Amino acid sequence: MQYMEKLGGQAKQAARILNCLGQKEKNKGLLGAAKALEAKAEDILAANKKDVAEAREKGMKEALIDRLKLTKERICSMADGLCQVAALPDPVGEITAMKVRPNGLQIGEKRVPLGVVGIIYESRPNVTSDAFALCFKAGNAVILRGGSDAIHSNQAIAAVIRGALSKEGLPEDALQLVEDTSREAARELMRLNSYVDVLIPRGGAGLIRTVVENSTVPVIETGTGNCHIYVDNGADISMAADIIENAKTQRLGVCNACESLVIHKGAAEEAVPVIAARLLEKGVEIRGDETARSFCSEITEASEEDYGAEYLDAIISIKVADSIEEAIEHINRYNTGHSEAIITNSYENALKFQNEVDAAAVYVNASTRFTDGEQFGLGAEIGISTQKLHARGPMGLKALTTVKYVIFGNGQIRKG
Amino acid sequence: MQYMEKLGGQAKQAARILNCLGQKEKNKGLLGAAKALEAKAEDILAANKKDVAEAREKGMKEALIDRLKLTKERICSMADGLCQVAALPDPVGEITAMKVRPNGLQIGEKRVPLGVVGIIYESRPNVTSDAFALCFKAGNAVILRGGSDAIHSNQAIAAVIRGALSKEGLPEDALQLVEDTSREAARELMRLNSYVDVLIPRGGAGLIRTVVENSTVPVIETGTGNCHIYVDNGADISMAADIIENAKTQRLGVCNACESLVIHKGAAEEAVPVIAARLLEKGVEIRGDETARSFCSEITEASEEDYGAEYLDAIISIKVADSIEEAIEHINRYNTGHSEAIITNSYENALKFQNEVDAAAVYVNASTRFTDGEQFGLGAEIGISTQKLHARGPMGLKALTTVKYVIFGNGQIRKG
Repeated sequence: MQYMEKLGGQAKQAARILNCLGQKEKNKGLLGAAKALEAKAEDILAANKKDVAEAREKGMKEALIDRLKLTKERICSMADGLCQVAALPDPVGEITAMKVRPNGLQIGEKRVPLGVVGIIYESRPNVTSDAFALCFKAGNAVILRGGSDAIHSNQAIAAVIRGALSKEGLPEDALQLVEDTSREAARELMRLNSYVDVLIPRGGAGLIRTVVENSTVPVIETGTGNCHIYVDNGADISMAADIIENAKTQRLGVCNACESLVIHKGAAEEAVPVIAARLLEKGVEIRGDETARSFCSEITEASEEDYGAEYLDAIISIKVADSIEEAIEHINRYNTGHSEAIITNSYENALKFQNEVDAAAVYVNASTRFTDGEQFGLGAEIGISTQKLHARGPMGLKALTTVKYVIFGNGQIRKG
Repeated sequence: MQYMEKLGGQAKQAARILNCLGQKEKNKGLLGAAKALEAKAEDILAANKKDVAEAREKGMKEALIDRLKLTKERICSMADGLCQVAALPDPVGEITAMKVRPNGLQIGEKRVPLGVVGIIYESRPNVTSDAFALCFKAGNAVILRGGSDAIHSNQAIAAVIRGALSKEGLPEDALQLVEDTSREAARELMRLNSYVDVLIPRGGAGLIRTVVENSTVPVIETGTGNCHIYVDNGADISMAADIIENAKTQRLGVCNACESLVIHKGAAEEAVPVIAARLLEKGVEIRGDETARSFCSEITEASEEDYGAEYLDAIISIKVADSIEEAIEHINRYNTGHSEAIITNSYENALKFQNEVDAAAVYVNASTRFTDGEQFGLGAEIGISTQKLHARGPMGLKALTTVKYVIFGNGQIRKG
C-alpha cells in the first residue's frame, strides 16, 4: 500500500533530523505544541463534537463516549502533559560503560533514539498528544493510528501539533496520523519493517492480541493486568484489608487494579471475613473457592475462568492456598506479568515471593496501584510493558531509546 | 501440536528452578557438562558420522559439510566454551537504580532471567552446546531447534549435556532439543507465546526472515551485515588500506566483514588505486560506480543491487560520494544496522558519522571485524543483534536477562 509506505518514508526522514536535535530544540517544539493546543482549543472541540455525535448515532455506550469526549479542561491537561515532558531530562546522547580494550580501542554504549515508533490505540484522543510528546522528546518520529471513532479529534490535534512544529522550524512529519482507519492500513503498519522500529499497542486485550499476532515489526506488549494480592500466614490483616480495598476499588478499570486474591489457609479464617466485608461494602462482587466460601456466605462460586479474568470491574476472585509455594504457583499460572503483591510479616517469604513470582512489578506490603510511570518516578509513561524484552513495567523516555556502540580507534585491525 | 506444548511446559518448569539457582550451582552444571562432552566424545563423533554420511549422500557442498563435521578437537573446544562461560560473572540478581519515593516505597530494578529462550539455527552442531551454555548461565531454559542435517549430532550432544545436568541434581529440561525437524514444528515454536519468552534465529538471511515473518513470540534479529567503510577526504590512505584489507579479507564469510566502500571524491584519485591494488592482490573482485572505475580499470560496473548485497564472498562494491552527507545517506539507505566505519582525520566528521549513521556499532579508524562479543569484552556471545529493541550489537549474558521492579513497602496505598 503506497500510502503507508509514504508515511513510513516521511517518518524515517523526520527521524534522521530528530536524531540530531539537542534538548533545547526538542523542548521548543513541545512547548510550542502546548501553546498551540490551548490557542486552537475551539477547533479541536469542534472536531471532537463531530466524533461524539457520530458515536451517539452509532449507539456507543456513555462510558465510552466519556473517554472520547474532550473539554476545554481536557485540552489544557493535554497541553500540561506536553510541558511536563519538556521538563523531563533528555535520555539521548549519554555514553555509558566506556572502556579501553587491550588493543587500545575505546568502546562505549551511546543512548540513541529508536527511530520511528508506531502507536496503535483506541478511542482516547489525548493519546495523540501524549504519545507524540514522549516519542518526540526521546528523538523519535511517531506514526499514530488511532481508532476511527476519534478520527476528527485526532486529525485536529495532529494538525495543531504539526503546525506548531513547522512554526518552530522542526519537521512536522515527526508526528503523522494514519488517516485511513481501515483494518488493512493498520495491518500494513504492522508489517512496515523497513520504516518502523517498534510498534506499541495501547488499548484492550483484543487490540493487543491482534497486533502481536499480525506484526512482523517488533512489538512491545502493554497493559493487560490480572494482578494478584497474596495474604501470607501471619500477615497484618488490617494492613491487608487496606491495601486490597485500595488495589481493587480506588479505580476499577485500570490495568494495575487487583483482580484476584490468594489467601494462606492459616490466615483465611481471620482474613476472609474482614476483607470480604470491606469489599462488599464497596459493592464488589466476590467469587471464591470452597474454603473461602466457608468463611463468608456472600462469596459466590468461582470458576476456573474467574482465576484467569481481568475483570476491569467490581468483581474479585479469591483462592485459599495451602502454602506460599502453592500461592506462587497459582499466581505464575494465571497472572499476565503485570503487578503482584504479597502482604506478609515474614522476611523469608517476602524475598521468596519477590524472587519467584514472574511479573514486571512485585510488591511487598503495598498496593499494586503504584505500577505507573509517574508513581515510579519516571515521569509520564507510554504504557506498561508486560513482556520481558526491551522494557518491563512502566515505560518512560528511556524505553523509547536504544543504544549504539561507538568505537574510537587509531588504525586497529583484527589479527585473530 | 502437543509435542511442542509439552516441550514448552517442561521448559517453563525448568526455568522456574533455574531462576532460583545461585551461580555456584549453575557453574557446577556447566563444568559437569564440559567434562561429559569430553568423556563421551566418541558417542558424539559416531552420531556426527551419520549426519556427515547422509549429507554427502544428499550431495551437500564440502564447505557446508565442513561446518557440520565434528572432530575430537572441535568437541574439546565446545567443552572449553562451557568452561569459559562458567568463568563469566553472573548477571542475575543485581538490583540497580534503587530509590525511595516520597511515600517511603523503595523501588529497585532487579536483573532476572528471561525465562525460556528458543534458538532456531542451521547446521553447526557446536551451537547446541554454545547456546545452551549462555542461556543456562543467565538462568534460562532453552529450546533448541537445529537443522535436520545435524540432527544425530545434536541429539548426541543434547543427551550428554542433559545427562550431566541430571547427575548434578539440576533439571535436565534446562536444555531441550526439538527432535521433530519439520517446518511445522518450527512454526509451532514460533507461536508458542505462552511458554517461550524470546526467539533468536542464528543463520543465513533466509532463516532470519522466515522467523521474523512467522513469529508471534518476540524475536531478536541477528546477523545480516552489509557493512561499509567510508574513506573521508584527508584520511590517512595507508591506514584506510590496512583497515579495508583487514575488514574485507581477514575472513570472508562473516557478518562483520566489509562489503562496500564509500570514498569521498576529494580522496578518490589517490585512494581508489591504492585500495584497489591491495584488494585485487588478495583476489577480491571490485565493482564500482563510474568515478571509481575512472581511477582503476580493473573495477567492474556496480549495479544498484551490489550496494544492497551482503556478499559473504571475495567481492566488494565502491561508491564515490560528493560529501560526507551523501556518504551517510548512502550508508543509511543500504546498511543492515550492523557495523559501519569512517576513516578520517577530521574531528567534526568523526563525530558526525558516529552520530548520524544508524547501526549497532559505528567505528572511527578501526576495522568492522571487531564487532564480536569476545572482542568487545563481553565474553562469548549468543549472536549480534541488528534490531533496536532489547539488545543491539553483540549479545552476551546480559542480553539474555531482563529486569523486574521489586518494591518494598510498609502498607502504602495510592491516594490520587
